[in-house]
Amino acid sequence: MTEHTTRAFDADLHGLALKIAEMSRLDETQIRQSIEALVKRDMALADGVIAAKDRVDALQREIEEKAIVTIARRQPMAVDLREIIGALRISNDLEKIGDLAENVAKEVILLSDAFVIDEVILQLQRMGRLVLGQLMRVLRSYERGDAAEALEVWREDLEVDSLNNSLFRETLTYMMENPRNITFCAHLLFCAKNIERIGDHATNIAETVCYIVEGHTLPERPKADLTGVGGRPLPREA
Amino acid sequence: MTEHTTRAFDADLHGLALKIAEMSRLDETQIRQSIEALVKRDMALADGVIAAKDRVDALQREIEEKAIVTIARRQPMAVDLREIIGALRISNDLEKIGDLAENVAKEVILLSDAFVIDEVILQLQRMGRLVLGQLMRVLRSYERGDAAEALEVWREDLEVDSLNNSLFRETLTYMMENPRNITFCAHLLFCAKNIERIGDHATNIAETVCYIVEGHTLPERPKADLTGVGGRPLPREA
Repeated sequence: MTEHTTRAFDADLHGLALKIAEMSRLDETQIRQSIEALVKRDMALADGVIAAKDRVDALQREIEEKAIVTIARRQPMAVDLREIIGALRISNDLEKIGDLAENVAKEVILLSDAFVIDEVILQLQRMGRLVLGQLMRVLRSYERGDAAEALEVWREDLEVDSLNNSLFRETLTYMMENPRNITFCAHLLFCAKNIERIGDHATNIAETVCYIVEGHTLPERPKADLTGVGGRPLPREA
Repeated sequence: MTEHTTRAFDADLHGLALKIAEMSRLDETQIRQSIEALVKRDMALADGVIAAKDRVDALQREIEEKAIVTIARRQPMAVDLREIIGALRISNDLEKIGDLAENVAKEVILLSDAFVIDEVILQLQRMGRLVLGQLMRVLRSYERGDAAEALEVWREDLEVDSLNNSLFRETLTYMMENPRNITFCAHLLFCAKNIERIGDHATNIAETVCYIVEGHTLPERPKADLTGVGGRPLPREA
């Protein structure tokens, strides 16, 4: 690249980074508010989360467009190309995270007049905080190009999986205890699944950060998901 | 583009189309086998679905790489550019569909020694067939550049949502009837959610086909998801 192209390319990259930062902030708010809506059974807040998804979707399209135009115009190579591909991948994950937070908000609306088990809600809140913390850390590692921190987040996703496993089992026991809990708990199971999957996307982003910085992909992530796999028996009796 | 570039570009596009066709066939097999594994409680088949996911992931990366290289080399415009972006988007959806089929297979493994309610399994099978049919039709519309057929599939996703809503309610009643059904049914609820989400991705692909052919995006899809939204009360009593 000539010096002129380099400067133009840097400006393009900066524009992409700004949009990703905006998407990140939106996602963080979406997650925070969907969990808060769940804890407080706040329907208006849940509605707000659902409405805000449009902006997340629009940003993803804008990033895709800008990335493609940049590739066509500047024909970047090596790390420059990885930066653009990385931005594309991360915007995809951020869009999916927005979807998942929206799903939680939709479940909250279905819970409006249901029986409430605070213990499970508290567990969900814990899981939400953990996942949000991971997402914020991995996005910071992206901003700083810090592959080591990304790798740390990538490793810690096991904690979310383990929390989700406990929550699954605990929720089943409430369902067995009293059939009146069943509908409510079924929705909470979906909430937990959505939150856990936000963690999966944080992990994807960690992989992308390593790819951008180091140019290679990570091995398959160890997975402790799925609430029972690995020979541990599931609760069965009432 | 010169005639030479045009021919080179066509060859690139053809290469992308071949890879997408391979991914499509893999996804179809994954869905078919995960449902079959569920119906027959066939653990070996479920294991096969889980193992086959690696190839789907690899293809998605190959398509991404090839698409990016093509954009940088040929700098396509208008419909040509949309073709490439479309291939990128569709490969993302196909990768997610592979994930969802894998999730169903993982749930099947968790069901191995559980009580079985054939009625719910049959409903799941119906839903699986419906979604698979939609996916195959939308992929055919992609191959043919047929926006009208894509739009038809896009509209029909409401049927999947409605089937999922019935299945959700039906499954809850089995849980209420007998606590011994609860663990099994909780896994079936996740299976249903995964299958329904395959339908969502078929819908995304329909949108991409319209974007490639006509250059514009579709409005927000009507959504009847979420098993209770819209004032219909959920089952509550045992």
